[in-house]
Amino acid sequence: MSAVSRVLALSGGVGGAKLSLGLQRVLPPGALTVVANTGDDFEHLGLAISPDVDTTLYTLASLVNPQTGWGRDQESWNFMAEIERLGGETWFRLGDRDLALHVERTRRLRDGEPLDAIVRDFGWRLGVESRLLPMSNDQVRTVLETDAGVLAFQDYFVRRGCAPSVTAIRFEGAQRARAPAGILEALASGDFSAVVICPSNPFLSIDPILAIADWRDALRSAPVPVVAVSPIIAGGAVKGPTAKLMRELGLEVSSTTVAQHYRDLIDGFVIDVADVELSNRFDVPVHVAPTLMMSLRDKETLANEVLKFSHSISGAARTKVSS
Amino acid sequence: MSAVSRVLALSGGVGGAKLSLGLQRVLPPGALTVVANTGDDFEHLGLAISPDVDTTLYTLASLVNPQTGWGRDQESWNFMAEIERLGGETWFRLGDRDLALHVERTRRLRDGEPLDAIVRDFGWRLGVESRLLPMSNDQVRTVLETDAGVLAFQDYFVRRGCAPSVTAIRFEGAQRARAPAGILEALASGDFSAVVICPSNPFLSIDPILAIADWRDALRSAPVPVVAVSPIIAGGAVKGPTAKLMRELGLEVSSTTVAQHYRDLIDGFVIDVADVELSNRFDVPVHVAPTLMMSLRDKETLANEVLKFSHSISGAARTKVSS
Repeated sequence: MSAVSRVLALSGGVGGAKLSLGLQRVLPPGALTVVANTGDDFEHLGLAISPDVDTTLYTLASLVNPQTGWGRDQESWNFMAEIERLGGETWFRLGDRDLALHVERTRRLRDGEPLDAIVRDFGWRLGVESRLLPMSNDQVRTVLETDAGVLAFQDYFVRRGCAPSVTAIRFEGAQRARAPAGILEALASGDFSAVVICPSNPFLSIDPILAIADWRDALRSAPVPVVAVSPIIAGGAVKGPTAKLMRELGLEVSSTTVAQHYRDLIDGFVIDVADVELSNRFDVPVHVAPTLMMSLRDKETLANEVLKFSHSISGAARTKVSS
Repeated sequence: MSAVSRVLALSGGVGGAKLSLGLQRVLPPGALTVVANTGDDFEHLGLAISPDVDTTLYTLASLVNPQTGWGRDQESWNFMAEIERLGGETWFRLGDRDLALHVERTRRLRDGEPLDAIVRDFGWRLGVESRLLPMSNDQVRTVLETDAGVLAFQDYFVRRGCAPSVTAIRFEGAQRARAPAGILEALASGDFSAVVICPSNPFLSIDPILAIADWRDALRSAPVPVVAVSPIIAGGAVKGPTAKLMRELGLEVSSTTVAQHYRDLIDGFVIDVADVELSNRFDVPVHVAPTLMMSLRDKETLANEVLKFSHSISGAARTKVSS
């Protein structure tokens, strides 16, 4: 067990959820707070869908589909079969079990309940001991400018399987969006002893959070170490369009690019053992660890490595580079 | 095959849907139009539910659960299990397959499509050769005054299992509601050769339709025979709270009461063989037939009997009693 007591993690979908689960398992019960990206959120079949929040929720509740890393285990697809028969949209597939979350969230949002309160209650109902927060109760929508036109996130990500080439990414609504109440004060007052930016896609999963001034300012001035874990291993991404997207944006597909992207926020950076030869190419303290999370043990190991590293730099002067 | 060509049927839930299926099977393809009660409609889990429309739709599409007479066959209940886990309402159970209808209807209504157009499309998608119409695109809500207070229909019917004693029934919104476009003109111009009031609960399933002036006026002045089939057999009801409700309202539980209830509308009345001794107690022509519909053959037989009877009285002077 690390000496780190309470931890704030920033997460996107599958990769971030995996490290969040590792952190949950090695920290004392209730010591982890996860802030999930909601830039991927959208309305589908009239229902409010929050893919990254749900992936994190299912993962932390040990209800996630182990084959995919998202969606529910023991899922059935009878609803979807009937939607198809009725001529409804089927490109984004909602399982019968998963659907309960979307129907209840939609109902409660329409009744005026804020998203963070709904997510907190869902976590409690599903027996999650960590706290899960959406990055904001305000609507932020990730939009991609591509060679196939301007696309909503899920249109790009799911319907088109990330095939279009991306030229720019924007986060509509981020300028007006606020962090949920209370969390920034907790961070500023030292309630947390570390902030972990999980190995999610920096451009699609973490940037929506950082596009909110509340979050960027709070991380920049956090009185505790901010540590990011690179999603890039040996010049490739474990999952998803990260590497392809970086190439399209004219960036080197490397951990160094990710550290550079986070340079005004982080006090430490964790890279994979496969990239050990890059160790001296960073402006911030670097820790080398196995970052590929296949087993539960892998997740716990990486979580412990991140916490140890974070603790080791917590006494040092802040190393964030002003941007 | 009867000489009757096109038929308009008024229906509530299970009993009405059964006779509608019989009519569909003995009439030429497309010759049947069914108007379904929507007084039972309500919003549940944020979804627009139309129980009688859906029971009729599933029955005419041969997709209905044969055990219950409502809901889907081959149904699964994973959504409901998860709703329960999330602390959502579970007293009204929505199956995984059934849910598709509610989600799509809700989405399309929110997009501004009228209910009759949605139901027509659903029928087409599910391969129903008859035309199914909601009684109105306007909201009408059946409300019961009971010894347990004023109750919404599904609260009385499903949540409380019809246990409260009913003192009065009202149909909120009926005064402003209109029939869907085109159907009244078709009826008045002789497009149909008969109107059949199915053996549904007169007070809870047919009265919501008749509470709409459009429908009551159109049936009173219909240029073709209006024939009702009694839902009462030998002083009892086949299904549901009809008999209990009639007693609570101080009415004799008898086919004669039902005929009396419809007296200003009907030109003929069909009673069960078990009630043959009542034959001479009616002001309108009566036909005696087996009205209990267990098998598909039973439904077809009753449909043929109703059509033959309707044809036999179609030349006679109208016998409706002015109210």
